[in-house]
Order: sequence, then structure tokens, then C-alpha cells
Amino acid sequence: MRRHLGEGGTPDASRGRGRSRIQPDVDAAAAVVRGRLHRTPLLSSETLGAAFGGRAFLKTELFQKTGSFKARGVLTKLASLSAEEKQRGVISSSAGNHAQALAWGCAAEGIDCLLVTWRDASPLKVAATRGYGATVDQEAADHLEAFDRVRKLQRASGRTLVHPFDDPFVVAGQGTVGREIGEDLPEVDVVVAPVGGGGLVSGIATALPGKRIVAVEPEGSAALNMALKAGKPVSFAPLSIADALNAPVAGQLPLEICSRLGVESLLITDEEIEDGFRFLYERTKLAAEPGAAAGVGALLAGKIADVEGKTVGVVVSGGNVAAQMAAAILKGE
Amino acid sequence: MRRHLGEGGTPDASRGRGRSRIQPDVDAAAAVVRGRLHRTPLLSSETLGAAFGGRAFLKTELFQKTGSFKARGVLTKLASLSAEEKQRGVISSSAGNHAQALAWGCAAEGIDCLLVTWRDASPLKVAATRGYGATVDQEAADHLEAFDRVRKLQRASGRTLVHPFDDPFVVAGQGTVGREIGEDLPEVDVVVAPVGGGGLVSGIATALPGKRIVAVEPEGSAALNMALKAGKPVSFAPLSIADALNAPVAGQLPLEICSRLGVESLLITDEEIEDGFRFLYERTKLAAEPGAAAGVGALLAGKIADVEGKTVGVVVSGGNVAAQMAAAILKGE
Repeated sequence: MRRHLGEGGTPDASRGRGRSRIQPDVDAAAAVVRGRLHRTPLLSSETLGAAFGGRAFLKTELFQKTGSFKARGVLTKLASLSAEEKQRGVISSSAGNHAQALAWGCAAEGIDCLLVTWRDASPLKVAATRGYGATVDQEAADHLEAFDRVRKLQRASGRTLVHPFDDPFVVAGQGTVGREIGEDLPEVDVVVAPVGGGGLVSGIATALPGKRIVAVEPEGSAALNMALKAGKPVSFAPLSIADALNAPVAGQLPLEICSRLGVESLLITDEEIEDGFRFLYERTKLAAEPGAAAGVGALLAGKIADVEGKTVGVVVSGGNVAAQMAAAILKGE
Repeated sequence: MRRHLGEGGTPDASRGRGRSRIQPDVDAAAAVVRGRLHRTPLLSSETLGAAFGGRAFLKTELFQKTGSFKARGVLTKLASLSAEEKQRGVISSSAGNHAQALAWGCAAEGIDCLLVTWRDASPLKVAATRGYGATVDQEAADHLEAFDRVRKLQRASGRTLVHPFDDPFVVAGQGTVGREIGEDLPEVDVVVAPVGGGGLVSGIATALPGKRIVAVEPEGSAALNMALKAGKPVSFAPLSIADALNAPVAGQLPLEICSRLGVESLLITDEEIEDGFRFLYERTKLAAEPGAAAGVGALLAGKIADVEGKTVGVVVSGGNVAAQMAAAILKGE
């Protein structure tokens, strides 16, 4: 990943022009994460393959450090910071997998980390994030207010924003998921990934040019799908059981990449996600989070066209789900 | 594994003298299963290591074909049969993981398979076994009657008994779990395994001479522990949430091996097993069955002495659990 000279610091996707100039460098990201993160197993699933008449492989990112692929983007972004930037600390506004990954990565590198969330954010996730040593700010009333608060605190503190998806370093880091799939399974025809803001799927598309990439989103949380249709990110209030995918808007950079590289976009229902969740649990023995079951749910529902006879890699993106939620889905409540 | 000439057929652990003469040959078993079964990942768990102050690695046999390590022993045993024996078919009396593995292995080799169980055996497991193409006999009223029925049907049909644990080929097959741990983690100090009839742990001890091996059993299903104390297998009525470990008696051969090689035996409560189950689900993202959580439960409960600073391999032996049971444990019901 090349730093862009003359911009006076780290390229920041949130600062206008930078985002179209800096392109994600997945090879550089792979060098960053090598030896620091798990190379997660790619497990074959004959049962899933039989469901669509092809071969299925699961990229088990639920086994990644902090329980999701997010650690990849975080480490790649942190490695791009100058010593001075590291000293000023970082800021972000997630209470989910990105927050845990960022808190963990900052603890490992001795970087001060401030995470802005809102008053009724999940206590479990806030506790997990604090457990990694980050400061969590819960002054905001809701998601939108938290976003404004991040901007304000960022300006006041000089902290670097580590965006959960709209950042070339973060996209490059998530792209290492695709790179590893390509290395372990060169004959892969299709890669299926769940989508929140688009960082993961755009990274995978970048890593695997020429391969067919399918982005799966819940109907109630269709940020990328809406952005591809509108030609620009569209804000909305996401609502899906797949909380890890509930981004309120797609990233500009992920949108550009997915549009340029012809990533396919499709939607599935929460019920189909739950079917995928139960399949992963009962048949493949993976304790995935609901969002991580989106790809499997789409395959089981027959929503991905032309996969018969194909070799399909499916990203199982994380495993951070509360036991009560998992129990409810398993019981079919 | 050497066949013992002059005994008129396959060595059969249930036929007296054979069992003390034929010793499990794990290298030969490894050659049988290579390429036919998964080499299951050995995943590190920092959280579990931190719980006892050492390094922890999980041997993920829940990802094995048919959802448990049992496929290893089955394939090894089937490979030892002559063409004539294969034509006469096999018989066994399990309704659990061994039954599913045997049904699957026989289907793959075109061997007729008869599984004897009892009237109120789990419909789910019976269905899974039938799904692999085996015939399931449910004439017996209970477990003991089923055992008598196996003997009767075996004599009448000339089928070979594929015992779930008291057989040198089966023990050798299960030993490939230990062999793979030793290859992937030569510095391992301690291997912890759950125990039903003792086939797995005695196989592991055979594969890793000189290593410290710890056998973990539920208090309500302590077949090996009782046998080691009595110096011989003791029959009893097992009762534990860890249904995969509910063998009503330990095997003679496993007992001899564990006794000779100094395998440590310890007991844990069902509550400790449930704690291990939840830990595996929430922290390591593994959808294990209760019995497969026994080793982790024992480590978390501090029941395994002198593991501080040690490298410990823990066998997560299977993942065949009904969703309703899993949900109940996750909710702490």
C-alpha cells in the first residue's frame, strides 16, 4: 500500500478527494497481518455443496482474532499511521465487531482508542470493547448523534478516524480474506460474502479480479444494494437480525469498487439468515453470528444463480453473538 | 496393524484371547484414514490458555466426517475385514456417533450395516443413521436387551461386530487423533480427552507414548474411572447430559492400555460440562456437543493439576447435538 505524498498525513477516506486516489493494496495488507492474525481454515462442506449441486468451502473468519474478520482491516489501517498519529490516538463509532477489533489492535500497539457509541448500545458489546482497554463514550442519544459526535471529538482531539469500511487500508485488510481463499482454492469460481457497509466484499473483489463475487445483504439492511442502484451511498435506518450487517449507509470506496468490478448484489430475508444460522450450527458445527450466515442462507434459499457444478467459497464472517440470541434462533423462536 | 494368523478371521476384541494379543497400530490406521477423512484443524485458544496460565490448542474433531472422531475407528476396522467378511456385513449396537460413523463408512464401502438399538432411542439419531443407509433394529426394550440382541443376531447372520471402543482396530483409528496432535504440536505437554468407553483416550495414549494424557468423564458416567479403580470393567447405568459419553461399561482393551500407560482419570460434573459447552460456543465459536466440552470444562474448573505454563491439547470430540438441547444449555436452563 503506497502512501500518497503531498496530502499531509494518512489518506483518509472521509476527506473527499483522497478516496478516489488511494487504491487498496491487498498484497501490502497481507504482509501486515501475516503472523499477527490467524490464517483461518477453509473448510469444505459436502452438505452445503449438495444443496446447490456444487462444491462449497467455508472461510471461517469466526475463528479470527476478536471473533471476526474486522481485525484484518484494523491492523492494516493502524500500520499505515505515522508515529505522531499513533501518539494522538484513534477514534471510531462502532459498538460491534469493528469496535472490538479496533480496541484489541490498539491495545496491542499501545495506541489510545476512543469508541463513540450511544446510550442504549448493547451492554455486552460495550463491555467486550472496554475489556480490550478502549474508552467508550455513550453520551450520544442515538446512532446519528454518535456520528456527529465522532466528527466533533475527532477535530478537537486530532485523533485519526478508523472508519469501519470506507477506507482504502481497511478495505485492503479485509481483502486478505479473499487473497487467502484464492491461495487455498485457486479453482474457486464464486465467492459469496455478507455485506454491512461493503468493506469486506469490496476487499475480496479487489483481491480476486476476474472472479465472480456475490454480495449478500438482509432486505432490512441493504446499504450496498441501494447504493449500487442509486449510484451513490444512501442513508437509511437498518433493521435486521444480522446486527453485524446493520450499517446505515454503504461506503463510497466500497461502492466504487463493487460497481467497477461488477460485484453481484442480492437480498435475503431474516428467515433465510436464520436458516443459514441453523445450518451452520447443526451441519457444519460452526457457532457463527447471524450476519455471518447470510451467504449460506442465500445458497440454501437458491438465491444465487448458476452455481450448479461450481466451486463456491462462502465467507463466514464472524461469531460474536449473544448466547440468548443464539438459543432463540436455534429453537426457532 | 498385523492380522493375527491362525485365529480364523478378523481379530475380534469381544472374543477372549484376541484382545490381549493384537495391539493397536496407529501408524497403519493413519495410512487407512489419510485422504479419506479430514485432517481436522488444531486451533489455538488464547482465552482458554489464559484460564489456566498456559497454552491451549483445540483438536476440532467436531469437523470430522459424520460430526465426530468415530469415523476414524470405523474406517480402520472396515479396512481390516476380508472380502468375505465385508460381504457378510457388519453389526453394532449404538444409536449415537459410532452408529452414524459406521453407517457412513459402510455406505462408502458397500457393506451392509445393521445397527441394533432400543425402542425409545433418540428419533433424531435413528433418523440420521438411517439417512446414511443403515438398517436400524429397534426391537429391544432397552440398552441391555439390545446388547443381547446384537450377540444373537451376530451369531445368526455371521456379521462382524464393529465394537464402538473395545477393538484394537477401532482404538488404533481413534489414535490417529493423538498422532495428528503430536505431528502438529510436537511440544505438547498434556493431551486432554473426553471418555465414554475409552477408545479415544486409549488410542491417543498409544499414539503419544511418554506424553501426559488426561481422561475426563462425567461423574454420572464414569466407566473408565470405575474400571481403573476395580482393575476390570464394571457395568452400570450411565446418566449425564453428555450423552455421547454414556457408555455402560469401559472396554477391556482401553482399560489395559490406560492402566499400562498411566493415563490420568478425573471426573467432572454436568454443570462443569455445560460451562465448557458455553465457553466453546461463546469464546471459541465451536458448536460442540456436550460430551466434547468435557476437557475444556475440566480445565476451566481447575480440575487438571500442574498445567500452568504447559502446552495443552484438548480434544473437542464431536458436534452432534440437537438444536433444542444446545439452546437450553446456552440459555442456562
